[in-house]
Amino acid sequence: METKTPTLIIDKQKVRNNILKMVDKANLSNTIFRPHFKTHQSAEIGMLFKGQGVTKITVSSVSMAIYFADNGWDDITIAFPVNINQIDEIVELSSRVKLNVLVESVYSADTLSKIITHSLDVFIKIDTGYHRTGLLPEDSEIDNIISILATNNHLLFKGFLSHAGHTYVAKGRNEILQIMDKSKTILANLKQKYISQFPDIITSYGDTPSCSMADNCIGFDEIRPGNFVYFDVMQYHIGSCDFDDIAVVVACPIVAIYPKRNELVIYGGAIHLSKDFIAADNDFKLFGYVVTFTENGWSEPISGAYVSSLSQEHGIIQIPEKYLTNFKLGDTIGILPIHSCLTANLLRKDSCLYFNI
Amino acid sequence: METKTPTLIIDKQKVRNNILKMVDKANLSNTIFRPHFKTHQSAEIGMLFKGQGVTKITVSSVSMAIYFADNGWDDITIAFPVNINQIDEIVELSSRVKLNVLVESVYSADTLSKIITHSLDVFIKIDTGYHRTGLLPEDSEIDNIISILATNNHLLFKGFLSHAGHTYVAKGRNEILQIMDKSKTILANLKQKYISQFPDIITSYGDTPSCSMADNCIGFDEIRPGNFVYFDVMQYHIGSCDFDDIAVVVACPIVAIYPKRNELVIYGGAIHLSKDFIAADNDFKLFGYVVTFTENGWSEPISGAYVSSLSQEHGIIQIPEKYLTNFKLGDTIGILPIHSCLTANLLRKDSCLYFNI
Repeated sequence: METKTPTLIIDKQKVRNNILKMVDKANLSNTIFRPHFKTHQSAEIGMLFKGQGVTKITVSSVSMAIYFADNGWDDITIAFPVNINQIDEIVELSSRVKLNVLVESVYSADTLSKIITHSLDVFIKIDTGYHRTGLLPEDSEIDNIISILATNNHLLFKGFLSHAGHTYVAKGRNEILQIMDKSKTILANLKQKYISQFPDIITSYGDTPSCSMADNCIGFDEIRPGNFVYFDVMQYHIGSCDFDDIAVVVACPIVAIYPKRNELVIYGGAIHLSKDFIAADNDFKLFGYVVTFTENGWSEPISGAYVSSLSQEHGIIQIPEKYLTNFKLGDTIGILPIHSCLTANLLRKDSCLYFNI
Repeated sequence: METKTPTLIIDKQKVRNNILKMVDKANLSNTIFRPHFKTHQSAEIGMLFKGQGVTKITVSSVSMAIYFADNGWDDITIAFPVNINQIDEIVELSSRVKLNVLVESVYSADTLSKIITHSLDVFIKIDTGYHRTGLLPEDSEIDNIISILATNNHLLFKGFLSHAGHTYVAKGRNEILQIMDKSKTILANLKQKYISQFPDIITSYGDTPSCSMADNCIGFDEIRPGNFVYFDVMQYHIGSCDFDDIAVVVACPIVAIYPKRNELVIYGGAIHLSKDFIAADNDFKLFGYVVTFTENGWSEPISGAYVSSLSQEHGIIQIPEKYLTNFKLGDTIGILPIHSCLTANLLRKDSCLYFNI
């Protein structure tokens, strides 16, 4: 494997395995599987989901919804507070696919109620503890929103949706599963409260750490994990996956070697990997692990080697002396990314290759 | 000003002013001005430099060199350890523009000496204290490299080049100017050592903090700052600029408002702004300052308001209650980016507008 420039390598067999595990878990749990496509943003990877029977997807922007609608997906949830500045695009999309949006204010509900002219399903976003977006479960706005939705018969109140992003900073499996259970209780109680009036409402829940670690997702009507398709070093550290499950790596050429500092410099920086990192005490920062390429894949991480800093185009690798001597200028090494969503966003369009297709 | 999606707004008049100040400083110092174009990566912004007499540029990758060569620039330094995996592209480029590359190993010099068939100028990269790339000034490799360059008469030993990236973490103007002085001494001593043998060699020095803060750049034959064209919040905190000098802002729609938390949520996340931040004690992190738009520009930062976290598409803004009430869903606000190079890299191609053209 030799690369001229930083290149995203996607192992399709690992992707298929990651999808299969989550499909199986959703089936076992009798839960709708609506994977989040923001991680890969790729019609080609979408085909691997389609190959395993997936028909419903989640995206995080209107433009992503348009992209996947143009690529044949016709049941799409935009899991982001509805952006009323893109109302024209939402109207257009709702005329050609089954579209689901998230509302969390009377103002947004009112805007939709005045403009929407085709069927549009609306989830109310609930904050189950992450405190990024959503209404608290006891908020009286919920009733107000539901009332407003009823004023336009193109708008269908679809249920309650949450994203437990705080699993990313939870300490260990138990705490993550507790977050999941708490979300389950909150959403189930809300559903219970409104089910007699709206018999078709569902609960929808996302996030890769809890959906990966839980034995099942029983109790949610729908799950929306996304990152699991590729996984990454952050998920490994959270405990969501093994190294061997990580399905993407960035191939980078070595451009400088500093034996006295036990450092390699690669062509591969913040504009390829993103600036996400894992921090530990003593100012230690980890921007990626280092692997070598094999015939159709890559090795386990080189013990003791890691990306210690990133500039715009440079990556600095700390590597024990006994491994450093294996490399020469122009060799290509692989970097397991910290956050595959951001890395894929940077490289997917212009610099992407597939292994094990 | 209303935007549908996160949009990079570039104030061309501020850009012109920033360029003019640096052009004047270089002229005053009798120094070649070879600005780094990695910050903007834009042919259109390049024209503003050309309008002020700039003819020599710096880039950080071969692909960027090709882009600017295709846009009429014909004297280009690739300020990155020469990537021998792109030797074919370098040969091609050197056949049509005056190309300068950086070498810091015998291995790279040897590779070039065997392959280069058109005139190519070679700087030896010197580490003046940043310890990212480059040879220490006392390294015997310098002589070895010079000897190898002499074996191919297309290769011209051009001089010594350094980038003092450690000014970005220096504490205050004095420390930054000390770094600059130390680099000047190191480069001047090297030049002195070799000038009798190579009468045309020059010294080349970069980085925005020191070139912005110093009264002049006398003592360097060439300077290569880049970020100053836009500046950003990091440069403001370093002391390189005032808020009013920052020439870029990201326009973002407000998609959620949380009065109880004194928070706004914008459509504008890590894939628009980048994950760079400024950290302080107590886990405080700053991902950008907040401004409002005026007829042809934007305000000073709103006092006490800042971007406190970023997800892939979401930005969370902390804002004092008295200002929060000024905003409603769908309003567009501006974010002054932490690191304009990375923000521009993310938005420049697909989502960019100009003010004061």
